[in-house]
Amino acid sequence: MLGQMMDDALTITSIMKFAMKVFPDTEIVSVTGDNPRHRSTFGKAFTRVHQLANALSKLGCAPGDRIATLAWNDYRHFELYYGISCSGYVCHTINPRLFPEQVSYIVNHAEDQWIFVDPAFLPMLEQLQAELKTVRGFVVLTSKAAMPETSLNNVRCYEELIEAEADSFTWPELDENSASSLCYTSGTTGNPKGVLYSHRSTVLHCLGTNTKDTLALAPDETIMPVVPMFHVNAWGSVYGAAMAGTKLVFPGPKMGDGETLATLINEEGVTFALGVPTVWLALVNYLQESGSKVESLQRLVVGGAACPRSLMEAMDAYNVDMHVGWGMTEMSPLGTYNTLLPWMHDLPEDEKFAYRLKAGRLIYGVEMRIVDEEVNELAWDGKVSGRLQVRGPWICKSYYKLEDSDAHLPDGWFDTGDVATIDQYGFMQITDRTKDVIKSGGEWISSIDVENAAMGHEDVAEAAVIGVPHPKWTERPLLVVVKRPGSEPQKADLLGYLDGKIAKWWIPEDCVFVEEIPHTATGKVSKKDLRELFADYSY
Amino acid sequence: MLGQMMDDALTITSIMKFAMKVFPDTEIVSVTGDNPRHRSTFGKAFTRVHQLANALSKLGCAPGDRIATLAWNDYRHFELYYGISCSGYVCHTINPRLFPEQVSYIVNHAEDQWIFVDPAFLPMLEQLQAELKTVRGFVVLTSKAAMPETSLNNVRCYEELIEAEADSFTWPELDENSASSLCYTSGTTGNPKGVLYSHRSTVLHCLGTNTKDTLALAPDETIMPVVPMFHVNAWGSVYGAAMAGTKLVFPGPKMGDGETLATLINEEGVTFALGVPTVWLALVNYLQESGSKVESLQRLVVGGAACPRSLMEAMDAYNVDMHVGWGMTEMSPLGTYNTLLPWMHDLPEDEKFAYRLKAGRLIYGVEMRIVDEEVNELAWDGKVSGRLQVRGPWICKSYYKLEDSDAHLPDGWFDTGDVATIDQYGFMQITDRTKDVIKSGGEWISSIDVENAAMGHEDVAEAAVIGVPHPKWTERPLLVVVKRPGSEPQKADLLGYLDGKIAKWWIPEDCVFVEEIPHTATGKVSKKDLRELFADYSY
Repeated sequence: MLGQMMDDALTITSIMKFAMKVFPDTEIVSVTGDNPRHRSTFGKAFTRVHQLANALSKLGCAPGDRIATLAWNDYRHFELYYGISCSGYVCHTINPRLFPEQVSYIVNHAEDQWIFVDPAFLPMLEQLQAELKTVRGFVVLTSKAAMPETSLNNVRCYEELIEAEADSFTWPELDENSASSLCYTSGTTGNPKGVLYSHRSTVLHCLGTNTKDTLALAPDETIMPVVPMFHVNAWGSVYGAAMAGTKLVFPGPKMGDGETLATLINEEGVTFALGVPTVWLALVNYLQESGSKVESLQRLVVGGAACPRSLMEAMDAYNVDMHVGWGMTEMSPLGTYNTLLPWMHDLPEDEKFAYRLKAGRLIYGVEMRIVDEEVNELAWDGKVSGRLQVRGPWICKSYYKLEDSDAHLPDGWFDTGDVATIDQYGFMQITDRTKDVIKSGGEWISSIDVENAAMGHEDVAEAAVIGVPHPKWTERPLLVVVKRPGSEPQKADLLGYLDGKIAKWWIPEDCVFVEEIPHTATGKVSKKDLRELFADYSY
Repeated sequence: MLGQMMDDALTITSIMKFAMKVFPDTEIVSVTGDNPRHRSTFGKAFTRVHQLANALSKLGCAPGDRIATLAWNDYRHFELYYGISCSGYVCHTINPRLFPEQVSYIVNHAEDQWIFVDPAFLPMLEQLQAELKTVRGFVVLTSKAAMPETSLNNVRCYEELIEAEADSFTWPELDENSASSLCYTSGTTGNPKGVLYSHRSTVLHCLGTNTKDTLALAPDETIMPVVPMFHVNAWGSVYGAAMAGTKLVFPGPKMGDGETLATLINEEGVTFALGVPTVWLALVNYLQESGSKVESLQRLVVGGAACPRSLMEAMDAYNVDMHVGWGMTEMSPLGTYNTLLPWMHDLPEDEKFAYRLKAGRLIYGVEMRIVDEEVNELAWDGKVSGRLQVRGPWICKSYYKLEDSDAHLPDGWFDTGDVATIDQYGFMQITDRTKDVIKSGGEWISSIDVENAAMGHEDVAEAAVIGVPHPKWTERPLLVVVKRPGSEPQKADLLGYLDGKIAKWWIPEDCVFVEEIPHTATGKVSKKDLRELFADYSY
C-alpha cells in the first residue's frame, strides 16, 4: 500500500524558487577577474538566472545537453549552476588545473555543446579548440567592456548574452532523477571518469549535510567556499547556502592567497569556510606573518587530504574550530563530518586530537562498512581496518557512459579504494589506499600511519612507505625518505625513532634515502612510481 | 537524461539502521504507568524492535496492514513506531482523547488488525469491543507482572509477546512511497479523515526540519516531546531524534503535569521540548509557584495554537527561548518555524515580539502561497491576507479511502482552511479560519486580531468575534464577551478600548455579553455554534 502524500519532485529548481521567495536580500559577494568586490543577492542572481535560461534556450540547448563551465568561484558561476540545471541541461564543471589533454578528453567524452569560460582560461581553450569536436561555441564570463581578444570561433560575451533577455522563464517540470551536473574524477591511472549527479541526489545531499552537526548553514552564517566550484560542486555549499539563506562569499581566482582570504573574512564577516589543508596553511601563514586576526571566523571544514595536527592547533589559537570532512567526487561528496560527541570535549588533549583528526562521524544518508578480502563485515572497534565501502542516495551508481561497468559492487556497495577503521561511535579513519596497503604475515600495515610517524622526525622533509616482497612475511614496509636540507639523519636513528610510536611489527625493515619522491599531477605521492623505482629491492 | 546515482530508498528503516550503528548508547528515558523512570537506549530499543517485528509477523500481519496504537509517549510506543513501519505495516496512532464513538469510527474505517494499548485505555476498548469489526486482537503495553484483568478477547501482553522472539530480522526492501503511518484529523464537522504518510514523506520531513534554523537536533541536545505520539508522530521528533543521535525523554501519561515536566527536565538535562501552549502554561505556573528552575532547558517549540505573549515573556525570564511552529496533520506537520533573522534581534521589544509571535518562517520543502477568492496570488507584504495554501513532498495528496475526493486543489495545492499574511521575509501569520472570516465592504476583517485586542481588556474573561449580516456592508463584526467574574464592563468602554489597537473599520458595531462561549471537543471556540446562537441578530 502506498502513502497518499504529494509527489512533488526534489529538484534544484525548488531550491532556487525557495531562496527567491524567502531570502531575496541575502548577499552573494564575489572576487572576479574584472571586479575585486562584486555585490549581488539571491534575488538579483536568480533574476539573472531567468535571463540566462532564456539565453540558453536561444543558443539551441536541448534537454540533457551537457553545458560546460571552466570558471572560478563567483556569482556568474553560481548563476550557471542554477540556470543550466534548472533548465534541464547538465552543468558540467571542468577543472581548469587539469592537463590540457585531459580537458580535451573530458569535453569530448561529455560531448559538451557550449563552454562558459573565465577569461583566465581562454588561452588553454584556444590551444585546444581544434580538438573539441562537439562544442558549438564559447561564452566568456565577463562584461562587454572587459571582453578580451580571442581566436576562438563563435564567441559570446556573458553579460551581453543575458542582458537582452526577459527575466521570466517557465521552468520545466523535471523528474527528480534527471541528471543535473557532471564532474570528472581524475584518478592516478586511466582516463578521467564522469560522475553524473541527479536533482534528487543533489537535494538529498544538501538536506543531509545541513544538519546542526554537519554544515549547519543558516541565515546567521556567512560562508566562503574556498573549495572550487569545479570540484564536486564546492562540496554542495552553493546549493546549501540558497536553501538555508546563508550569505555567500566567493574568492574567485584568489583561492590560495592568504591575504585575500583574510581580508574577505574580516570585511564580509565570514563565519564558516570550506577548503583543503593547503588553503588553510596559506591563511594561517599569512595571519602569523602579518599579525592579522579573523575574529568573525568560527568554523572551518577541511577535506580533500588529511589535516595536520599542527594546522588544527594553529587555528585553535585563533579560536577557529576546524572540522575534518571526508568524501569523494563519487559521493556528492560528503560521507563523514567531524563533530565531537559532547563527552569527547572533556578528554585529555591528545585523546581529543586523536578524535578531531579522524575523517569524521558517519552522517545519515550514507551507509558505510569495512570488509575483509572475502567481503566479511568487520567490527567497528576503531582497531580493525578493512576496505571501506559506502552506499546511499547520493553515491554514484555507475560512471557516465560506463553504465555497463558498474561503479558499485554486485551487492550494491561502492568501493572507495580506501582502507579504514571505524570506531563504536561511527568515527572513521583512513589508514591506507587499498592499492598501497602492505600485507605482512597475513595482517595489514597502514603505510599512512608509518609515514605520519616518520614525518615527525626533525630531519625528515618527506617520507613514504611502500611494501616490498619478503621471503617470510610476504611483504615488509620500506621507508623512503627525503632528508631535510643540511641534515644527515642515519637509518638506525630514524627507525629507532619509530619505536613506541607505532606497533613494533609495523617498523620498516629498512630505510632508503632519495633526492625526491615522485608525485602525481594532483600533488599526491605516487606510490605506483615509487614501487616501480624499488621493484628490484629485496630483503 | 537520468543521473547515475544509487536508487537507495528513503525509508524509516534506514533511520533505525543508522541509529543502531552510530548512536547505540544514546538514551531513551520514559515515564510509564508501571515505571516512573524507565531507562533504555537506541541500541536496546532497536534490538527489541527486531523482536517485535518477529512477533508481528507471527501475529499474522500482512504488508500494508494497519496496526493501531492507543498509547502515551514512551519507549514501547517508540518501538511500535519502528517495528510496525519498518516491517511494511502501517502504524495507525489513535488519539485516546477522542470521543469513544470517534475511536470506533476510526478503527473501523482504517480496518485495524491489532491494537496495541496502554493499560490506561483498556476501559474504553472494553466498552467499544463489540463494534470493532476488523480487530483480531489486542496487545497490552505492559509487563507480565503488571498485566491487568480485562474483558477483551484475544489479549496479549507486550513484554511476553516480544521476549520469546529472536533479535534478528530481515527487514523488507520497501518502496519509499509505501505507507508508513496513519493519523486521523478530527475536524469540527464530519467524520475524521485519515492522513496516510509514506516512508519518503517521513524521511524528508525529518531532514527538512532538522536544519540549524528549525529543530536542529544533534547529540548535544536532549529532547522531550510533550506533544503526543498520537498527534502527527509527535511532530516527527521520534524519527528526528534517532537520525540525529539525540537523547529522548518521554513523559508518558504526565504530559500536563508541570511538576513532572520540571523534574524530568532537571534530572535528565532536557535542552529542548515540544508542546502546545497549555503544556508550557502548566510548566511555567509550576515554576512560578514552586520557585524551581529549569537551567538545562534552552529552547521550546510551541505549536497547535497561538502562543500568548505573556507565556513567551514568562519563559524568557527563565532564559528559555520559545519558538512558534506551525503545521497541520496533513503537513507531517511542519510548514513554518519561528527563528528570527539576525537583524530582528536588534529590534525594539514590541517589534521583536511581533515577529516572535508569528507562525514562523517558511521552511525549505514546503511551498506556500496566499490567494484571493479567484485564486490570484497575493503579495508577501505582511499586510494583505488571503487563503493559505501549501504543497510539497510531505503534504497530504488525498485522505485515506477518499482518493477520489482529492485533498488538494486541481492545480496541486492543499488549502489549509486558514487565512494568513506572509511578509517579505517569509514569516507567516494566521489571521483567521477561512470559514470564520468576516467580509465587510468587500474587504476581510481578521476575527483573531479583533479577539486578541479585546482579550487585552482587564474585564474580559473570553472574547470571540463573528460576522453578522449587515444591509450596507454585507457583514459586520459582532463582539461576544464573557465578563471576568466580579466585573461589570460596559459596551461603550469595551468598543472604545479597541480604538487605536485595530483598524477603525474593524471595530465591531456591537458587543454582547454571554455566560459562556461554546467550545469544540478539542477546546477551541466553536464559531459555528456561536453563529447559530446569533443567527437572528441583525444590525
